[in-house]
Amino acid sequence: MPYFDAASSAPLHPVARQALQASLDEGWADPARLYREGRRARLLLDAAREAAAEAVGCRPDELFFTPSGTHAIHSGISGALAGRRRVGRRLVVSAVEHSAVLHAAASWEAAGGSVTEVCVDRQGTVAPAAFAAEMDKTTALACLQSANHEVGTEQPVREVAEACRALGVPLLVDAAQSLAWGPVDGWSLLTASAHKWGGPAGVGLLAVRKGVRFAPQGPADERESGRSAGFQNLPAIVAAAASLRAVRAEAADEAARLRALVDRIRGRVPELVSDVEVVGDPVRRLPNVVTFSCLYVDGETLLHELDRAGFSVSSGSSCTSSTLIPSHVLRAMGVLSEGNVRVSLPLGTSEADVNGFLEVLPGVVRQVRERLGAPAASSAAPPPPSSAESLVVDALGRRCPIPVIELAKVIDDVPVGGTVTVLSDDEAARLDIPAWCGMRGQEYVGEREAERGVAYVVRRVR
Amino acid sequence: MPYFDAASSAPLHPVARQALQASLDEGWADPARLYREGRRARLLLDAAREAAAEAVGCRPDELFFTPSGTHAIHSGISGALAGRRRVGRRLVVSAVEHSAVLHAAASWEAAGGSVTEVCVDRQGTVAPAAFAAEMDKTTALACLQSANHEVGTEQPVREVAEACRALGVPLLVDAAQSLAWGPVDGWSLLTASAHKWGGPAGVGLLAVRKGVRFAPQGPADERESGRSAGFQNLPAIVAAAASLRAVRAEAADEAARLRALVDRIRGRVPELVSDVEVVGDPVRRLPNVVTFSCLYVDGETLLHELDRAGFSVSSGSSCTSSTLIPSHVLRAMGVLSEGNVRVSLPLGTSEADVNGFLEVLPGVVRQVRERLGAPAASSAAPPPPSSAESLVVDALGRRCPIPVIELAKVIDDVPVGGTVTVLSDDEAARLDIPAWCGMRGQEYVGEREAERGVAYVVRRVR
Repeated sequence: MPYFDAASSAPLHPVARQALQASLDEGWADPARLYREGRRARLLLDAAREAAAEAVGCRPDELFFTPSGTHAIHSGISGALAGRRRVGRRLVVSAVEHSAVLHAAASWEAAGGSVTEVCVDRQGTVAPAAFAAEMDKTTALACLQSANHEVGTEQPVREVAEACRALGVPLLVDAAQSLAWGPVDGWSLLTASAHKWGGPAGVGLLAVRKGVRFAPQGPADERESGRSAGFQNLPAIVAAAASLRAVRAEAADEAARLRALVDRIRGRVPELVSDVEVVGDPVRRLPNVVTFSCLYVDGETLLHELDRAGFSVSSGSSCTSSTLIPSHVLRAMGVLSEGNVRVSLPLGTSEADVNGFLEVLPGVVRQVRERLGAPAASSAAPPPPSSAESLVVDALGRRCPIPVIELAKVIDDVPVGGTVTVLSDDEAARLDIPAWCGMRGQEYVGEREAERGVAYVVRRVR
Repeated sequence: MPYFDAASSAPLHPVARQALQASLDEGWADPARLYREGRRARLLLDAAREAAAEAVGCRPDELFFTPSGTHAIHSGISGALAGRRRVGRRLVVSAVEHSAVLHAAASWEAAGGSVTEVCVDRQGTVAPAAFAAEMDKTTALACLQSANHEVGTEQPVREVAEACRALGVPLLVDAAQSLAWGPVDGWSLLTASAHKWGGPAGVGLLAVRKGVRFAPQGPADERESGRSAGFQNLPAIVAAAASLRAVRAEAADEAARLRALVDRIRGRVPELVSDVEVVGDPVRRLPNVVTFSCLYVDGETLLHELDRAGFSVSSGSSCTSSTLIPSHVLRAMGVLSEGNVRVSLPLGTSEADVNGFLEVLPGVVRQVRERLGAPAASSAAPPPPSSAESLVVDALGRRCPIPVIELAKVIDDVPVGGTVTVLSDDEAARLDIPAWCGMRGQEYVGEREAERGVAYVVRRVR
């Protein structure tokens, strides 16, 4: 049964399992104790730190183990901001950072700090010049992911790092998605999460370059040089380090192999399924992630049907989130969010599994569309005589993708030059109606507040 | 090789190992996802939560998994204090809480809150009336451990909980040392740590009773109902819950068996070794912990020699800490800190191992004392003719236990009624010189600042 959600969590790597089991016997004691069980634990911890530091590209005393990638991000950001308290209070982040970064930023803002989000283009990439323009010497900290977790786009970390260095601003790089594939250059602080590369849950990495001002926040704790509180999760740390080394050893070959499989998905999906938008940078991207959105499709049903067909994928559609808001990444990119599917291939994914997915997908999408009464892909029927210059579609109370489907159903009922106004209280409509216009070559006029919900106005131009 | 430091970290319980290995295959996916791997992970998580909640004595939706006991304590204290922000800013804790509690308290104080430490008696017990006297209706939170981690003394949680209830003050109970032995009554918040009961590292418990005001601090995160950030460490959580249940099943029998072994140590050590003080409540105590201090002994050397003889124990002596300050627990109790040994027996400790320890200990202590030139235990030699009414011993620059040894060497050189003044800059002397007087039946006059260090004055009264 193919699991295609490695970007959420990867299955345990065999080396991680082996290392975990081997260290259960020797890794349960307190590494701070001086008796033999403690000394043994300390040896394991030191060796794991050296291995992880080598993979990250830093000194062992610059690397700290945290309980998760989220903890690494939260501690890294709060510690770096506090360390630069006298310099300034501004935090600059990209708009497509992981929610752990954005939540830390929100927490900083709530505490009186200021936060600037740097926007991205339709591929999800920040422009280094735009990022640099938001900073000056009083900027406390900048955060930029090495690659995006939802669409796979790689960020120009080296260029942004240069801008940071020129201003003396420390740069925190969230390398959660890319560390398995290789080290990152230019960071002042780096964070990562072991279960993303096939290590066990319960281990994050926080690297802080010597010379970077850092003031750990929260109650004091002597573990991990004061950078991460709590008893170290030693067998998991050993397994994390061992599997990172193992994953790196096969990274080049595996990246090439998975990149070819992802290329096949990127190429074939738009051929096999109508009205699809493949999103994310086609070249500068993670080797194993591909994301696309399908018009007139309900993401939750799509995921459910793919799951029934044996494929586990993830989605940034609003209907798959508890908040009914599309993923902030898709919103920042301004791309279609309905029927969104992220495929992230774990190491070892077979060609047959990818082919199986490509076989199943078109039928699943067709089914979902039929059930929703979506308009046919190539509506070749001649438009009926225009009855009115403008139409209003009431989609209040209807969730994604219904507002877009209702719009598509009536667009040909107005003459070229006429408008359709969609009334909707669904957050996804704000993103998906303009995206539909872009895909359909129609003109998106704009939105305005309505008595209930929002009125989205579209002009038929063809 | 007997390991006698279960209160630091217990070896992995066989049930924990089994559960961990079994859940590695099914517990790596994100339990928040809806595909089959996520649903399986969710089932494991739900089952673990139910099992742990049953052992704690709460509803599953009152129990949250954290990355460690330390995280449970830090989050529990900060969340409860923030939840009662409008009521008041005072935190009341016992003076012998775990350092994680005291560090959280220090952090609260640094942020403008106020902290009151309730003192303990020589057994390490807080008096419920004294605890109650420090609280009123505007107290934000009270913290009391169920049992002390260094000396094993059980605290009167029920009585303090009643006082708290009467005032409407929430009570956080750190149950790290006692949860293996049974549930705790009367708490509003409870914390614990899996590796103390033979579960894996990386799992803490935070229980928050419904109705207790709680405002999680730090960046938002949807995991664990917002009570604990980061991807759940699922195999470890499963192992923690399974082993807690297993440990509880054997708790009554094992407690009785270990209690008898600890009683043997409590009884035999003072018979086998001269000048020993066994500390902690002899009756109201954990079944598996016993702590004693040996006069004229250097704790670090003692631990080292016991380790060489095959016994792993811990110590609260100043020379075994990085700060050169004796354990805050021993200081709060006012008992001797030099030559301190904590024996905490893991489940399954054999009688033979305990007997082996009792055989080895006297020789090890004798050796250490001889090397330090300590006075003989029963100095039966007639005192030499008194040469002076008062003597000054310069022990500046000498570490524990030398200042006490130097005092003991000259006490008989002054006549009854005369004084010995010890000049010392060792923090342990402040605790150990009065403790020596207590053990020796001499009068401790007091301390005063000296040109260098502190002058401790002792009057010979016998």
